[in-house]
Amino acid sequence: MTVITLTTDFGQVGTFVGQMKGAILALNPNQPIVDFCHTVERHDILSGAVTLEAVLGVFPNGSVHVAVVDPGVGSNRRAIAIRTDAGYFIGPDNGLFTTVLERTHLQSAVCLDNPRYHRHQTSHTFHGRDIFAPVAAHIANGVALEQIGSPVSDLVRIDIPKPEELGNVLAVQVIAVDSFGNLVTNLNAARLNQWVKEVQPTDIRIAVGLTTVLGIHKTFSDVEPDRLVAYVGSSGYLEVAVRDGNAAQSLGVSRGAVITLEKT
Amino acid sequence: MTVITLTTDFGQVGTFVGQMKGAILALNPNQPIVDFCHTVERHDILSGAVTLEAVLGVFPNGSVHVAVVDPGVGSNRRAIAIRTDAGYFIGPDNGLFTTVLERTHLQSAVCLDNPRYHRHQTSHTFHGRDIFAPVAAHIANGVALEQIGSPVSDLVRIDIPKPEELGNVLAVQVIAVDSFGNLVTNLNAARLNQWVKEVQPTDIRIAVGLTTVLGIHKTFSDVEPDRLVAYVGSSGYLEVAVRDGNAAQSLGVSRGAVITLEKT
Amino acid sequence: MTVITLTTDFGQVGTFVGQMKGAILALNPNQPIVDFCHTVERHDILSGAVTLEAVLGVFPNGSVHVAVVDPGVGSNRRAIAIRTDAGYFIGPDNGLFTTVLERTHLQSAVCLDNPRYHRHQTSHTFHGRDIFAPVAAHIANGVALEQIGSPVSDLVRIDIPKPEELGNVLAVQVIAVDSFGNLVTNLNAARLNQWVKEVQPTDIRIAVGLTTVLGIHKTFSDVEPDRLVAYVGSSGYLEVAVRDGNAAQSLGVSRGAVITLEKT
Repeated sequence: MTVITLTTDFGQVGTFVGQMKGAILALNPNQPIVDFCHTVERHDILSGAVTLEAVLGVFPNGSVHVAVVDPGVGSNRRAIAIRTDAGYFIGPDNGLFTTVLERTHLQSAVCLDNPRYHRHQTSHTFHGRDIFAPVAAHIANGVALEQIGSPVSDLVRIDIPKPEELGNVLAVQVIAVDSFGNLVTNLNAARLNQWVKEVQPTDIRIAVGLTTVLGIHKTFSDVEPDRLVAYVGSSGYLEVAVRDGNAAQSLGVSRGAVITLEKT
Repeated sequence: MTVITLTTDFGQVGTFVGQMKGAILALNPNQPIVDFCHTVERHDILSGAVTLEAVLGVFPNGSVHVAVVDPGVGSNRRAIAIRTDAGYFIGPDNGLFTTVLERTHLQSAVCLDNPRYHRHQTSHTFHGRDIFAPVAAHIANGVALEQIGSPVSDLVRIDIPKPEELGNVLAVQVIAVDSFGNLVTNLNAARLNQWVKEVQPTDIRIAVGLTTVLGIHKTFSDVEPDRLVAYVGSSGYLEVAVRDGNAAQSLGVSRGAVITLEKT
Repeated sequence: MTVITLTTDFGQVGTFVGQMKGAILALNPNQPIVDFCHTVERHDILSGAVTLEAVLGVFPNGSVHVAVVDPGVGSNRRAIAIRTDAGYFIGPDNGLFTTVLERTHLQSAVCLDNPRYHRHQTSHTFHGRDIFAPVAAHIANGVALEQIGSPVSDLVRIDIPKPEELGNVLAVQVIAVDSFGNLVTNLNAARLNQWVKEVQPTDIRIAVGLTTVLGIHKTFSDVEPDRLVAYVGSSGYLEVAVRDGNAAQSLGVSRGAVITLEKT
């Protein structure tokens, strides 16, 4: 059976997520639903886009991913569903699917303009429950994208910051802070290996503000407790952590901070 | 298959919710279970009653809704299960189902006095796991309410504050604050339309403390960022929000606050 | 169908739990998965072990319990799966299963050294997603433990504090604080009854710091609001609470605090 995942900025309180699930289950009470993440920063489309990238390659192909970070709900921003080789993605057309579009092959995209697949009464402030959730349920039930809306081609994309090479230095950015306070950067393993190539990973100096650490390791316990450690994390991106600690807190660093890598 | 939903004041930490799910799955490992809301204010029956109203009309008819806001657990307060035209509701008989009883047609109500449908060992402090959860699982499995307990008729109800008309002014109350800080009032769309009737929605002045806003809009983006906006929310009640902001925080308002509407 | 439960220290934010679910559902999209608890204190193996004890006797026998409190991930600490008469347990071999081993009969234990049952690409920092989750899915799908890894026998255990008898006094420890601030001790009902035997439960004086309360009751409402109450909780352990209050906060007590019982 097809899995539906939910990614929102609704947080862990209240009933919004529960209501979305109700709207899905009303169309198929046996539908498996997974909370992927509800702690995207509120109204933060970049944070949502980065979060969504993590569903790729983890869930079964053909899964239906609903994403709601939707400050423009009820305005004339479009509601869309897209089909890629990694599954379906449904939500507002505000750039939330930028990383998905970068990383997958787009097969089809429609605007959700067929009210037949929405809830009977559609509010102006909660399309997550009234449009995205029921559309996801219908897609999981086998309804073709072409039934659900009209084709669209000019999907909104946002700028995702990329690493920048400045002579001997590679400047990367913290694009997420995980629940342990580890700093996730925008430098993926492929780009890192390409840049590093002629030197040893142990000869890279990583600087976060005034703090530096030498070498890229495999895991936390490769360094002593409370020491900084850089490694390629489980998402495939370079991360900086404090072993058994909270790097974001102890370094006073948050999303957007620059980390530099230098060949020594 | 029948869905079971859970609404509690257990919060997002600890194992209470997980234990309730275990007690259900022990009776049917394939039972779909949805967390509707676990952030009801602790021991706050009014907050629970208002929260439960939101399951109505969202979940499939016949769903089984378990609610646990139960300061009197283990005392002589009754445990009940009721059948309505909107589904089953199970929990303590302390007023938690007041809004459900207001909004649905009651078909049957029983006191959970048949221990055959409880867990083998019943604690005095966790009826959510030991009585309500297994009873819900049995009902979802098709056991008749009449098997589960003796009929009861005098269900406990609490006062739910209602809007009050004072000449030209309608005084409503904040009955909930959602996860974005939006203020949900006790004024539903029908009552609003009835009161508004001879004037334009744009001619209503809404006052929250010393702050006022003119007109009732459709959605957040109908006003400029950081401005107050009043609209009928996704729950069917009038809400007041700050676009892209947090109304509860910026206005210093919490549940119980009075908001007035005036025809200008 | 077999249930898989998840117990971690990942907290309620981010995507780690969602990614583990994806890794399970990739192997069986219909697999029921329950969040048992994600608020184990970070890297706190004792807290994890105490939390895991609560799954025993609640979930159907044969359930598959995944636990991730894993400060040594990626180091040479072993990854294990064990079969007991209460179900399967999968996670790091760091003592997390100490209470499970105390309370169940161990039938088999293996080290997760067969990469055939791991995700294709295994990270060094997220074995929850890359090893434990897929192994759990395979076990739930019916793969024998013997396929999944080599037998191991010397499982790591940690010290779980036990009550200590000092003359007329029984000194017990707070081993957990629940979401209401109730203090859960390490004194189980059997040991309590054995110690109490010749006196009445009403003649036991319980002291938490300088605050004392007389008698062991059944439930909160046996005392007046805001008063201290001691009772055998739903987990089978002695607990101390403030009726309608938060004992941990009002007494300034946290895990590890000593509570004494004295026969008067």
